Amino acid sequence: MENNEAPSPVQMFQTLTAYQDTGALKAALDLDLFTAIGEKGATAAELATRCEAAERGIRILSDYLTVLGFLEKKADRYHLTRDSATFLARNSPAYAGGAAEFLLGDHLTQAFANVAAAVRKGGTVLANGGSMAPEHPMWLSFARGMSWMMMPGAQALAEIAALDPTRATKVLDISASHGIWGLSFAQHNPRTRVVALDWAPVLQIAWENAQRMRLTARFSMIEGSAFEVDFGRDYDVILLPNFLHHFDPPACVHLLRKCHAALRENGRVAIVEFVPNPDRVSPPDAATFSLVMLVSTERGDAYTFAEFEQMLRDAGFTSIEQHSLPPGISTAIIAEKA
Amino acid sequence: MENNEAPSPVQMFQTLTAYQDTGALKAALDLDLFTAIGEKGATAAELATRCEAAERGIRILSDYLTVLGFLEKKADRYHLTRDSATFLARNSPAYAGGAAEFLLGDHLTQAFANVAAAVRKGGTVLANGGSMAPEHPMWLSFARGMSWMMMPGAQALAEIAALDPTRATKVLDISASHGIWGLSFAQHNPRTRVVALDWAPVLQIAWENAQRMRLTARFSMIEGSAFEVDFGRDYDVILLPNFLHHFDPPACVHLLRKCHAALRENGRVAIVEFVPNPDRVSPPDAATFSLVMLVSTERGDAYTFAEFEQMLRDAGFTSIEQHSLPPGISTAIIAEKA
Repeated sequence: MENNEAPSPVQMFQTLTAYQDTGALKAALDLDLFTAIGEKGATAAELATRCEAAERGIRILSDYLTVLGFLEKKADRYHLTRDSATFLARNSPAYAGGAAEFLLGDHLTQAFANVAAAVRKGGTVLANGGSMAPEHPMWLSFARGMSWMMMPGAQALAEIAALDPTRATKVLDISASHGIWGLSFAQHNPRTRVVALDWAPVLQIAWENAQRMRLTARFSMIEGSAFEVDFGRDYDVILLPNFLHHFDPPACVHLLRKCHAALRENGRVAIVEFVPNPDRVSPPDAATFSLVMLVSTERGDAYTFAEFEQMLRDAGFTSIEQHSLPPGISTAIIAEKA
Repeated sequence: MENNEAPSPVQMFQTLTAYQDTGALKAALDLDLFTAIGEKGATAAELATRCEAAERGIRILSDYLTVLGFLEKKADRYHLTRDSATFLARNSPAYAGGAAEFLLGDHLTQAFANVAAAVRKGGTVLANGGSMAPEHPMWLSFARGMSWMMMPGAQALAEIAALDPTRATKVLDISASHGIWGLSFAQHNPRTRVVALDWAPVLQIAWENAQRMRLTARFSMIEGSAFEVDFGRDYDVILLPNFLHHFDPPACVHLLRKCHAALRENGRVAIVEFVPNPDRVSPPDAATFSLVMLVSTERGDAYTFAEFEQMLRDAGFTSIEQHSLPPGISTAIIAEKA
């Protein structure tokens, strides 16, 4: 025994009720409570008016959020913390509450309602292969709500995999989603054109982001499945951001070979992934991602660097290297066409 | 600003995905994974056989539970932690996994799926007043799964509110559930008889516990609603364990007056509750309990000691005192018939 304290059921209890924390934060976003609190703070009575809710309900929810650390309570006034003001108030430029639409969408909540069934089967029990169903609406939620999480990594990747500025270059962004990964390359390189590939409804959001970033002149799109469409050819870089984890290694190798064929000589693939250490239980964010894939896809997983190395070699790549991307959750794996 | 670090969305992200931790632990209990691991530990392949599940599914779930701290992984073997061996392996005498049936029952998960609606209304949006519907089946789950949590507190309360051992005494246990609170008094006092009051289906579980504790000779039952049935009279102690939080203060006072009338001279009520501090945001377990009441009852709440004092005075009680009960989450409030 490493310590002499009595065994404790506290963590079991906290984990069995953790879903209640999720429910409380979701409610605050649904009610736009953080925006209503604003810079000056507010009482439950004031918030009840602003959120069109019962004062008693607001008081109890706000107390709960104070316990969780999302609010501070002084006398009977609730105030935003710095993190809440930055990420949870809708008028903040860094507002990230849109993530709730994806993270709490039916697809994921249904998948996590019966994890045991997926463990028994070894893959999702959702209809049509879960999140891999063609044009699954969850990817609209993802593109709308999750792009903010990708921005720091996308900016870093465009520098890590820098393109030759002295000539015209071309980037293919596979499973482009919001388009931020590819658009960051176009932003960094005035002579780079970007081709975004995804389901048609999702590309609408990438197009809007291209408009917002004033990059439509160097932005084009391919609609459909990466396994089926023609990629075109002579790309300098092909991006695979958060895509390979949905598939088993043979499917990944198949796709990497298709990328290999579409690259110019010495062209590179840049994979962005949650990459666990060889022990598969660290770091936490990458290691826990495997379960998301188990319950929501048929054969997906979070692969280690050694597994990606093997897949890339099998597909004909060389000079394989990895770079941690900010804010420290994702890893870029870059490899060259041999 | 108290610190110079950049604002972080990590807590938002963790809270929005906290329900996934709940889902993982529930799956492990459903599969009886902890029992299958046992004292010697096991590989994913061994567990797949024992749990009749896919090895890949077991590996991913076990890695996730390792990240959460419920397991330890050494090479490719998973081992129980001391807490898991004590509370999560079914062959442990302290097995507490039955709590999942109550904490993750439809009643609570449905209530927490739309917290915003309850905040708007100021009370549950579940049918028939939520958990207060007559003979709601959730109380069977509670009686079956949660009695282990009550045992240390029940033992302590029987000593704090000790009865005169020199004469015959009588205890009424309102909302007896598993019966543990009242039965602890009978266990401590050979001349004490206990009357347990609850819905008829729930009393079956209390009766089984009375049999297990060999106390049926001094144990009787009243079936029905505490607001409607005749209590009888001349009780030395009336217990109200985890009951008043379901109601608003006027209903609590009404019930306390009924208790007052059923007590002998100088008899006492002993209320067991989650009692937040006057700030209502500490301690965490008591403070967060308000939200459980908001979403699952029409008018319930977690009341402060000052609020209980007021209700008890209004009902004619005096000498009001509070005692923290082990393991430190619940409080006993004891008051005497004036």
